[in-house]
Amino acid sequence: MQIAVIGPGKATSQECEAAYATGRIIAVSGAVLVCGGLGGVMEAACRGAKEAGGITVGIQPNTEGGNPYLDITIRTGLGIARNALVVLSGDVVVAVGGKYGTLSEIAIALKSGRPVYGIYTWDIEGVIPCSSPEEAVSRAVRDAARHGTA
Amino acid sequence: MQIAVIGPGKATSQECEAAYATGRIIAVSGAVLVCGGLGGVMEAACRGAKEAGGITVGIQPNTEGGNPYLDITIRTGLGIARNALVVLSGDVVVAVGGKYGTLSEIAIALKSGRPVYGIYTWDIEGVIPCSSPEEAVSRAVRDAARHGTA
Amino acid sequence: MQIAVIGPGKATSQECEAAYATGRIIAVSGAVLVCGGLGGVMEAACRGAKEAGGITVGIQPNTEGGNPYLDITIRTGLGIARNALVVLSGDVVVAVGGKYGTLSEIAIALKSGRPVYGIYTWDIEGVIPCSSPEEAVSRAVRDAARHGTA
Amino acid sequence: MQIAVIGPGKATSQECEAAYATGRIIAVSGAVLVCGGLGGVMEAACRGAKEAGGITVGIQPNTEGGNPYLDITIRTGLGIARNALVVLSGDVVVAVGGKYGTLSEIAIALKSGRPVYGIYTWDIEGVIPCSSPEEAVSRAVRDAARHGTA
Repeated sequence: MQIAVIGPGKATSQECEAAYATGRIIAVSGAVLVCGGLGGVMEAACRGAKEAGGITVGIQPNTEGGNPYLDITIRTGLGIARNALVVLSGDVVVAVGGKYGTLSEIAIALKSGRPVYGIYTWDIEGVIPCSSPEEAVSRAVRDAARHGTA
Repeated sequence: MQIAVIGPGKATSQECEAAYATGRIIAVSGAVLVCGGLGGVMEAACRGAKEAGGITVGIQPNTEGGNPYLDITIRTGLGIARNALVVLSGDVVVAVGGKYGTLSEIAIALKSGRPVYGIYTWDIEGVIPCSSPEEAVSRAVRDAARHGTA
Repeated sequence: MQIAVIGPGKATSQECEAAYATGRIIAVSGAVLVCGGLGGVMEAACRGAKEAGGITVGIQPNTEGGNPYLDITIRTGLGIARNALVVLSGDVVVAVGGKYGTLSEIAIALKSGRPVYGIYTWDIEGVIPCSSPEEAVSRAVRDAARHGTA
Repeated sequence: MQIAVIGPGKATSQECEAAYATGRIIAVSGAVLVCGGLGGVMEAACRGAKEAGGITVGIQPNTEGGNPYLDITIRTGLGIARNALVVLSGDVVVAVGGKYGTLSEIAIALKSGRPVYGIYTWDIEGVIPCSSPEEAVSRAVRDAARHGTA
């Protein structure tokens, strides 16, 4: 099972804490964490997953770099078009915070039939608001087990 | 000057009428119309532009096909990732109606600094709501002349 | 009918002359010239096409810029992955000179069933070698008329 | 360290044996195997890597499927444009057999400065021909350790 975590590359400490907890719980649940590979929410989620012994995948917009908590680095060079790949590669999506980049990913996820669980994020029809990382991940895992391509 | 028109491939008659008028006015203003190359809003806008003597470009998600009103067909095979190319190729964007696919394009446009003028579309912070195609295009043209890469 | 012209961004004067002639003849034949939008062979071909009254399309790897002879600019931000779009958007392909970037385009074209006519370029099985731009374009036009998606 | 293995989706038994051995040795060397996620050479290499306890990543052209030996599935929906991502994601590349699709990957790899080690594949300037999977992988690993982004 692969869970995509999306959110801003520059994040508030509240968003980073939620992302870190999200990453930890994804790892504990045995799922692979997929993200955009950069900083902020992405890095915090990866750090959480790695500290809990999980596996992390970063789908980079560029052809080098990536945050220090990635096991697998997909170098795309696609720029912002890589956003589609991040959510398509998740069986389900957890959104933490975010502005327009995250909104584009939420929209592509919903267009592609992936459930999106949200924490401190866009209040868009289709996003399932959650009050905690625990709630978001446990519901995401249940969803992915039921519908996922995993 | 290149103006991207975005909107659903399956559209209501109200949306198609607005798209048709939008295409006409874009052509009359001398701008090139860029779109996703499919049906619905995209086809109506292209038809409007062609009937007014304009030039139309369709950036297809697949590697064949396209609506019958395209002068130039860009065959990408990129699937939904091609959405980014549609808005990046516009100096400004006019959104007519739309659901999640259009929302992803609005979000990428705003993330990339392109003004988005909206008719019957998402009420998102950053989208400039317009009451008519005339208003949307005339403001878009003025914007593109000022800031555009054109 | 859309004809893709591929070749290096930094080209010899011999390659540029051949590209310029290729662009002229494409325009005279009434086809649209599609290319990667940058300098060298691409710019020379576009200049030739524009001086003969043709239409030129550049599919850029980045999100800005492009050579000065483009009518339509497709801004992809896809980096080297945009190479696929250039050849997919041609009904046929003319290669002038080139090294590894051009070779990747030749290979994608042949993989995708597009005829490739070559001038001073890779001697690869599948590339049809031509002794002049006239020969390359006239054969390309005949091919595109017969098999093209145009 | 990430090593990309490229080759045809429909392969001869000789190619599959070489790919299988290549996958095994990559796993034993501790590197991650990255490939295009489909059958033939890709599947054989993944099977070899999994049987030796390695980690496999498939960068799919479509949005579902993939061979049964993938740990991580990157669903791109990019069609043939995903070829660029496969080789960009490798620190080095091993090519086994292959026709035009593989040639496009070899060309992008060389254009992007990645060493390409070849077994039964294109005899192109820049490809380092190897007489066995052992030779290809051992040289690739040494190269990646020296120059890689790993």
